[in-house]
Amino acid sequence: MTPSPSATATTATTYVYDFAEGHKGLVDLLGGKGANLAEMTRLGLPVPPGFTITTEACRAYLRTGAEPDTLHAQVSAHLDALERRMGRRLGQGDDPLLVSVRSGAKFSMPGMMDTVLNIGLTDASVTALARQAGDERFAWDSYRRLIQMFGRTVLGIEGDAFEDLIDDARRAAGAATDVELTADQLRALVERFKDVVRVRTGRGFPQDPREQLDLAVRAVFDSWNGDRARLYRRQERIPHDLGTAVSVVAMVFGNLGPDSGTGVAFTRDPATGHQGVYGDYLANAQGEDVVAGIRNTVPLADLATADPACYAQLLRTMEVLENHYRDLCDIEFTIERGTLWILQTRVGKRTAAAAFRIAVQLLDQGLIDEREALRRVSGGQLARLMFPRFATEAAGDVAGERLATGIGASPGAAVGAAVFDSATAVARAAAGERVILVRRETNPDDLDGMLAAQGILTARGGKTSHAAVVARGMGTTCVCGAEELRVDPAARTLTTADGTVVAEGEVISIDGTTGAVHRGEVPVVPSAVVEYFEGTAPADTDDLVAAVDRLMTCADRVRRLDVRANADTADDAARARRFGAAGIGLCRTEHMFLGERRTLVERLILAESDDEREAALAALLPLQRDDFTDLFAAMDGLPVTVRLLDPPLHEFLPDLTDLSVRVALAHDVHDARLLTAVRRLHERNPMLGLRGVRLGLLVPGLFTMQVRAIAEAAARRGAAGGAPRPEIMIPLVGTVQELEIVREEAERVVAEVERDHGTRLDIPLGTMIELPRAALTAGQIAESADFFSFGTNDLTQTVWGFSRDDVEASFFGAYLEKGIFGVSPFETIDADGVGALVTTAIAAGRAARPGLKLGVCGEHGGDPESVHFFHAAGLDYVSCSPFRIPIARLEAGRAAAEG
Amino acid sequence: MTPSPSATATTATTYVYDFAEGHKGLVDLLGGKGANLAEMTRLGLPVPPGFTITTEACRAYLRTGAEPDTLHAQVSAHLDALERRMGRRLGQGDDPLLVSVRSGAKFSMPGMMDTVLNIGLTDASVTALARQAGDERFAWDSYRRLIQMFGRTVLGIEGDAFEDLIDDARRAAGAATDVELTADQLRALVERFKDVVRVRTGRGFPQDPREQLDLAVRAVFDSWNGDRARLYRRQERIPHDLGTAVSVVAMVFGNLGPDSGTGVAFTRDPATGHQGVYGDYLANAQGEDVVAGIRNTVPLADLATADPACYAQLLRTMEVLENHYRDLCDIEFTIERGTLWILQTRVGKRTAAAAFRIAVQLLDQGLIDEREALRRVSGGQLARLMFPRFATEAAGDVAGERLATGIGASPGAAVGAAVFDSATAVARAAAGERVILVRRETNPDDLDGMLAAQGILTARGGKTSHAAVVARGMGTTCVCGAEELRVDPAARTLTTADGTVVAEGEVISIDGTTGAVHRGEVPVVPSAVVEYFEGTAPADTDDLVAAVDRLMTCADRVRRLDVRANADTADDAARARRFGAAGIGLCRTEHMFLGERRTLVERLILAESDDEREAALAALLPLQRDDFTDLFAAMDGLPVTVRLLDPPLHEFLPDLTDLSVRVALAHDVHDARLLTAVRRLHERNPMLGLRGVRLGLLVPGLFTMQVRAIAEAAARRGAAGGAPRPEIMIPLVGTVQELEIVREEAERVVAEVERDHGTRLDIPLGTMIELPRAALTAGQIAESADFFSFGTNDLTQTVWGFSRDDVEASFFGAYLEKGIFGVSPFETIDADGVGALVTTAIAAGRAARPGLKLGVCGEHGGDPESVHFFHAAGLDYVSCSPFRIPIARLEAGRAAAEG
Repeated sequence: MTPSPSATATTATTYVYDFAEGHKGLVDLLGGKGANLAEMTRLGLPVPPGFTITTEACRAYLRTGAEPDTLHAQVSAHLDALERRMGRRLGQGDDPLLVSVRSGAKFSMPGMMDTVLNIGLTDASVTALARQAGDERFAWDSYRRLIQMFGRTVLGIEGDAFEDLIDDARRAAGAATDVELTADQLRALVERFKDVVRVRTGRGFPQDPREQLDLAVRAVFDSWNGDRARLYRRQERIPHDLGTAVSVVAMVFGNLGPDSGTGVAFTRDPATGHQGVYGDYLANAQGEDVVAGIRNTVPLADLATADPACYAQLLRTMEVLENHYRDLCDIEFTIERGTLWILQTRVGKRTAAAAFRIAVQLLDQGLIDEREALRRVSGGQLARLMFPRFATEAAGDVAGERLATGIGASPGAAVGAAVFDSATAVARAAAGERVILVRRETNPDDLDGMLAAQGILTARGGKTSHAAVVARGMGTTCVCGAEELRVDPAARTLTTADGTVVAEGEVISIDGTTGAVHRGEVPVVPSAVVEYFEGTAPADTDDLVAAVDRLMTCADRVRRLDVRANADTADDAARARRFGAAGIGLCRTEHMFLGERRTLVERLILAESDDEREAALAALLPLQRDDFTDLFAAMDGLPVTVRLLDPPLHEFLPDLTDLSVRVALAHDVHDARLLTAVRRLHERNPMLGLRGVRLGLLVPGLFTMQVRAIAEAAARRGAAGGAPRPEIMIPLVGTVQELEIVREEAERVVAEVERDHGTRLDIPLGTMIELPRAALTAGQIAESADFFSFGTNDLTQTVWGFSRDDVEASFFGAYLEKGIFGVSPFETIDADGVGALVTTAIAAGRAARPGLKLGVCGEHGGDPESVHFFHAAGLDYVSCSPFRIPIARLEAGRAAAEG
Repeated sequence: MTPSPSATATTATTYVYDFAEGHKGLVDLLGGKGANLAEMTRLGLPVPPGFTITTEACRAYLRTGAEPDTLHAQVSAHLDALERRMGRRLGQGDDPLLVSVRSGAKFSMPGMMDTVLNIGLTDASVTALARQAGDERFAWDSYRRLIQMFGRTVLGIEGDAFEDLIDDARRAAGAATDVELTADQLRALVERFKDVVRVRTGRGFPQDPREQLDLAVRAVFDSWNGDRARLYRRQERIPHDLGTAVSVVAMVFGNLGPDSGTGVAFTRDPATGHQGVYGDYLANAQGEDVVAGIRNTVPLADLATADPACYAQLLRTMEVLENHYRDLCDIEFTIERGTLWILQTRVGKRTAAAAFRIAVQLLDQGLIDEREALRRVSGGQLARLMFPRFATEAAGDVAGERLATGIGASPGAAVGAAVFDSATAVARAAAGERVILVRRETNPDDLDGMLAAQGILTARGGKTSHAAVVARGMGTTCVCGAEELRVDPAARTLTTADGTVVAEGEVISIDGTTGAVHRGEVPVVPSAVVEYFEGTAPADTDDLVAAVDRLMTCADRVRRLDVRANADTADDAARARRFGAAGIGLCRTEHMFLGERRTLVERLILAESDDEREAALAALLPLQRDDFTDLFAAMDGLPVTVRLLDPPLHEFLPDLTDLSVRVALAHDVHDARLLTAVRRLHERNPMLGLRGVRLGLLVPGLFTMQVRAIAEAAARRGAAGGAPRPEIMIPLVGTVQELEIVREEAERVVAEVERDHGTRLDIPLGTMIELPRAALTAGQIAESADFFSFGTNDLTQTVWGFSRDDVEASFFGAYLEKGIFGVSPFETIDADGVGALVTTAIAAGRAARPGLKLGVCGEHGGDPESVHFFHAAGLDYVSCSPFRIPIARLEAGRAAAEG
C-alpha cells in the first residue's frame, strides 16, 4: 500500500493524520487503534471520520514538557476538515459536532487513559444537542458522562466524588439504575458535577470545546507516564520511549432510540474457533452500558430481525475484515438511527482450542500459508490443551457444590483431601493419600507440604503471591486468592461465604486454570491432545486434535532445532519418544542413587578406607549398568546424554538439624556416626560446594565407575544387536583443566571396556556449560569437549546470584510486583544476562571447534519464548521434560517460520 | 645488539646456535641458560665453548615425535666446529672432548631433566682421559657419574639401582664417602653399573659418543612433557607449547687436583642486599659435590689466597656481569688447573630486604632508573617485610627449646597456649587467652577453632593442606607438616622427636615464615617497616626502611591508580590514612549491627507490625549516624564509600541447628520464638539468598534508615566545618531496576535531610558490581549509577559457582595440587573468567556514562598480581584492607612503571 503524500512527509513535521491518510502499517506512529481506524477507512468501511495525533507528537511532548510548536495548527486544520466534512462545528451551533478522544499505543497497556466521549458538549451545546436529537434526557446524560469522564481522567478527580453524587440522586429519585433518572434529574446532577470540578480544580468545567479537546489530548500524553503504565511496561519489557497516539473521532450515538444500538461482533467463535456469527448487541445504548452490564445484551443474530439491512451490512463488513486481516476480527460497532458505524476492529483474542482450529481453517481456506498458520498458535496455547481438566458435564453436576472461585495461578485439575498444614500434608501423602493443601497464604515453612500436595489452595494473594510463584515453579496445580473462603488452621476448616464448612480430610477439587473450587471429587478428564501424542487416540479424534496434528506436522517440517528429552528412566524415555523426542539430552544419574540404593551411597560416604569405598562403588556398578542398558534400549538408535553424578554427597544423608536433634535426644551409635559424616560434609551453600566435576575429581573411582557402567551397557546392547548412542556429560565444569583430567580417566576406562568386550565404542564426551566461567572460557573448554549442553537453570542461579530454592519463596513475588522482573528468569531465559553468556559461549566454542554440538538441557528448553532465543542463538537442540516436548517442537517450528 | 646473520635466519630452519651467535634477547629460542651463556660469550667472558639447540627444534620434535630432518646435520656441523676449536674429538683419541648436555627453557621448571655431564666417555675414552688428566681415579669416577646420570635421566632407570651399588661398594671398601673409593673400586663399580643398564634396557651402555649426545638431547626434549613438568606448568600457567632448548657445553673439570675447584658467587649478598663478595668455593670438586654437601665449602673470599689470579679475574667478571645485567648476578664457575671458566649466570634470587636495598643501591649507582627500580621489588616482598617476626637474638636464646621445623604455610609469628581441639580453642580465646591450635591435620570441623586461634600448627600436610589453605585465606599464622611432632589429641599433648612432651596450656611460639616451632614465648618484634608506615619510626631508621621509603615515593609518583581502604571504624580509617589511603572504598555497615546492637537487629527481625519494625529502625538510626560521623571525621576531605546492609538477616540470629537442639532439650519461650524466626528466614544457600539490595527492597525502611544516617552525619560534619565526602553503595545489584527503585528512595531521603538541615549534600550513589549479571548488563546499570565498585570476592564465587566458606576447606587443596588452579582465585583475580567480566563491564559502563568512577573493593584490591590487572583494565582505584595499602600503592606504581 502506497502511503499518502502527507504520510511520507511525517518524519519531519506531520503530527496529525486523517484516517484516510493512514494504514495499518503505521502502527508505530498511529498506535494500534489509529492504524486500524485508518485501515478500515481505506477499505471503504463506514468508520466515523476523524484523525490521529502521532506517537511522535507524544514523544516530543514528553521530552520537552510542551506540545510541539506546530501541533495546535495541525490539529486545527484537521478539525476544520472534519467539521467541513460533517457540516457541523465542534460544540457549536444548532447541530454541534461531538468527538471522542481515544488513546492507542503500539501495545495496549493497562493504566493508560482510555477514552473521553462527548467532547464538545458545553452548557450551550447541550441544549442544541437535545433539540437536534429530540431527546433532552439523552443530551443531559451525555453531558453528565462527559463531565464525569473528563473530570476523572483529564482533571484527576477521584471517581468516587461523582459516583457518590449519582448514588445520592438515585436514592433521592427512588431509582434503581441511572437509566431511570429523568432529564431534569440529570440536569441537576450536571450542576453538582460542575460544582465538584470547580471545588477540586479551582475553576469551572471548560466551556471552550477546543480547550476540552486539547486538555484531553494532553491527558492522554501524560497518562503514558502514569505509575501503572510504567510498572506494566517494566514488567512487559516495553520500551519507555514509544509514546502513545491519540485518535479524535466524530461521535455517533447508539442511544438515540430503538433504531439505534451498539454491539461487539466476532468473525469466528473466540471460545471454540468455529465459524459463524458471534457477538452481542444492545439496542438504544452506548458502548459504556454494555461494559457496565446494567442491561442484558442479546445475541448478535437477533439483529437480523431487528434491522436486517444493518445486519447484512455488518456481515459483509465482517467478511471484508476477516479476509483483509486474514484472522479472527473483534469488531465494535454502533447503529445510529439505522446507520451502521464501525468504531474499532482488532485481531481478536481467543482460547487455545480456538487458536488451533482457526489457524487450520484459515490455512484450508488458503488465506494463510503454513508458516503463517504456525505463527497463529503458540506453545503456551498447546500447553493449556495438555492439562487434564474437570469433566464439563460433571462440573455442571456439582455446580451446586461450587465453594468459591479464586485466581487460576498454576494450571491443571487436582482432587484430594483438604489439609490445613504442611506436616499433615506430608504425613497423609506419605500414607498414599492425595491431598490439597489449604492455607490462608503460604510461606517458606509450607514448602514440604506444597511438594507433597496434588494442589494448593489459598484464600489470599494474587498471581505473584508465594503460593502462586512456588506452585508454578513446581508445576503443581494452584488456585490462590479465593477470598470468599475463610481458612481456620486451628479449627482445621474452611468456610464459604454462605457458611458451608469443609473439615480436614474432606475431598475438594480445584481447577488451576479457571480458579474453580468444588466440594467433592469432580471427575477429571485427560487431555485429548495428550492422548493423541501418547498414541492412544488417533489424529482424527476431533477437529481440535486434527488441527494440532496438522500444525505439529508443519512445525516438524520447518524447524531447525532438534528436541530431546530430560529423562532418567526407561519409562520416561519411552514416553519422550512417543512425544517426538530425538533422543535424551539429559539423564540425571543422581536419581539412580535413591531408594534402596541410598544405603550403598551411605556406605560410600562413610567408607574409612580405600577398600570400603571401592566395595561400595563395585556394588553400585551393576545397578548403574542395568539402568543404562534399559535406557539405551528405550532410546535405541537415538543419542542418550548421561550426566555424571552432580549433587553434593550430603544430599544422600539425613538433614543436619534433624539428625542433631535426634542425636541430642537419644543416643544411637549409627546416628552418631552419621552425624559426624553429615557435619564433615555440611556446607553452608551446597549449591556452591563440592558437587559435579569437583566431586568426581575428589572421590576416587566415582566417575570411572559411572563411565564403566555406561560403556559396559553400551557394549552389551551392541552385542545384543542394538544401536546404543551414549554421550557422557560432565557437570559443573568451570575450567578446561577439570575436563582434561576427567577425559583422560574416562578414555582409559572406555578403552579397557572396548578391550574386554572386543568391541569399538564411540562415546562423545562433553560438558554442561552451567557456570559463568565455563561460558566465559568456552573457547578453551571446547578444546576438550565434543559437545556443550547449556544448563540454564544453574546458569541463571549463578549469573543472578540467587538460588531457586531460596528466592522463589522469599522475594520473587515482590520482584514481579515491583516490575523488576517481567517474568521469572527461571521460567523464560533472561536474554540480557544469561542469554548474553550463552551467545558468547556459542561463538567461542564454535570458533575453537567448528563441529561442536550445542544444546540446552535446563528447563528453559521447554519454554516457548526461550526456544525462540535458542533457535536464534544457533543451538542444535533443546532438551526438556517429556510433557514439554510437543511444546518445544511447535515453538521450534514457529521460530523457524518467523526466521 | 645486532643478531648474527645465522640468528636472523632461524625462523626458517636454523635449529642450532653457537654460543657466539646468540644473545640474551633470544631467551624464547635459546632458553634462559643458553641465552645467558651466549651473552657471556659475547661479553668475552671465559665460557667453555658450545652451542644451543633451540626450543623450535624441541617443538618440532614434540609435534611430530621425531627430530626435524636437518637437526642431525646441524648438530654435526656445530659439533665439528666445537671439536676443531678445542682441537679434540668427542670421546675420541688421546685427549677426548667431553661435553655436558643442559636443558634450559624460557622459565626454569622443576621436573624437567637438568644436566648430563661427561658425555663422550666410553670404555675406550675413559682410559685416554685417565692418561690425559694423569688421574685414573678421576677418569673412572667421571665415567661412573656419566653412566649413573645417563642411566637415570636418559634411560629412565630409577636412581636407587645405582645408589644401592655405591653403598655396597662403600661398605665393601670400608669407605665413609664415595671420595674414598679408589680407581680400581670405581672401575669395578662402572662394570656393575653397565650390568644394570644392560639388564634394565636390554642393551649395553652406548659406546658411540655421538649416540650418547643424541639420546641425551632427545631425553631433554621428552622431559618437557614429564608429569611433574606438566603439573608445574598447569599450576604456573606456563603454556604447554613453548618447548625447551638444550645447550651442549665443552666439559671443564674442577676436580683435577688442588689447583682446580668449583664455586658459586653472588655480586651482592642475596640475604641482606649489602655489597661485597659472597659465595662458596670447594677445591678439587665438581658442581655436583657442592650440591651433595659431602664436603664443606669455604667462603669465596678464601680463594683470594688460594688462587689470587683466578680470584681477581672472577671479581672482574662479577663486576662486568653486574654492570651488564644491572642486577645481582648468581654465577657458577669452575677453575680447571688454574683457569677460570664461567659455567652459568642468572639474575640471582634474593630476600625481600635484599631486593629493596639492591634496587635503591643500583638506583643510586645510576645503573637503573626509578621505573626500573620499582620493577625490581614487589608487593609480595613488601608484605614479607610487614609481618612481625621472632626477635632474632631471642630465637637464638631459645634455640635449645626448638621443638620442630615444619613448613611455613602462612606467614607471621604467633605465640599462645597449645590447645588440641577446636572447642577448647574457642573457649580459651573467648576467655581472653591467646591460643595456638595444634592438630595432626585440620578439617572443616576445626574452622571455629582456627578462627579463634592466633596460629595453627599441624603435624601433617603441605602447603596445599586444609590448614595451610584456610589459614592463608584467614591471614592467620600457620606452620604445617611439622612431621617431627607426634600430636595426641586424646592425651592433649604433642611430643617431639627427642621425647619432649608439651601439654595443653603450655605456651608455644610458631613462625609461619620459617616454619620454626619453639617452646615458650619467643619475643616477637614488630616490623620496622610497619612502624615507618605508622609514623612511629622515621624513614631513616635503617637502610631498609630508607629503601622502602625511597621506592614508595617513586611508586606514588608514577602510579595512576588511587588506593583506598576497606575500613569500617574510625580507628581503621585513621590507620588507613597513615598508610596512605586516598579514602575509604568500602565501609561495611553490617559490622555496625553487631555486639550490643544485635538485640536491636533481633527486634527488627522479630517485629510483627510496622510499628515495631519502625521502632527498631528508629533506635538504630542515631547509632548509625554516630558511626558515620566518626568515620567522616577520620577521613575528612576524602571520599568514604558506605555500603548499605549486605548480609541476610538470619546472620544476626543464632544458628538453626544449635538453636533447634537447645529448644529440643529445654523449652524456653524466647528461644522458641527465635527458632520460628530462624526457620522462617532459613536459607539453603544464604550466599544466594535474600541479601543486599534484595533485603533493602523487601524490608521497608531499612535502606532509607541507613541513607538518612549517612546524610545526617554528613550534614552535621558539614555544619561543624568538616569536609565529609560520603558515597552510598548498593550491594548485590543484578539489574538496573533494583537500583532505580533504591535511588528514587535515597534521593527523596537526602532531599529531606537537606531541607531539614538547610544545607546542600552531594552524595554520589553507585553500586557494587559483584554479580555476573551486573557485569553483563553494566551498560544499563551505569545509567543509574554514579560509580561502580567491583566486588571481586562475590564475583569469583558466582563466576566459578563456589562459595569460599565451603570450597577452601573441601577441595581447593586438591585443586591446587592437581594444577587446576595455579593460585587460588580468591587470592589473585582469575583473569580469564572474572577478569573478562570486569573488562566487559568497564567498557560497557564507560560507554554508557563517560565520567563513571570505577574501583574494586574485593580482597583482590590488595593482591599484587591483581593490582596489575586492575591497572591495565583501567580502574580509577583499588580498595583493600589497611595493612595492604602500602602493597597496593607499590604495585600500582610498578604497574604504571611497566606500562
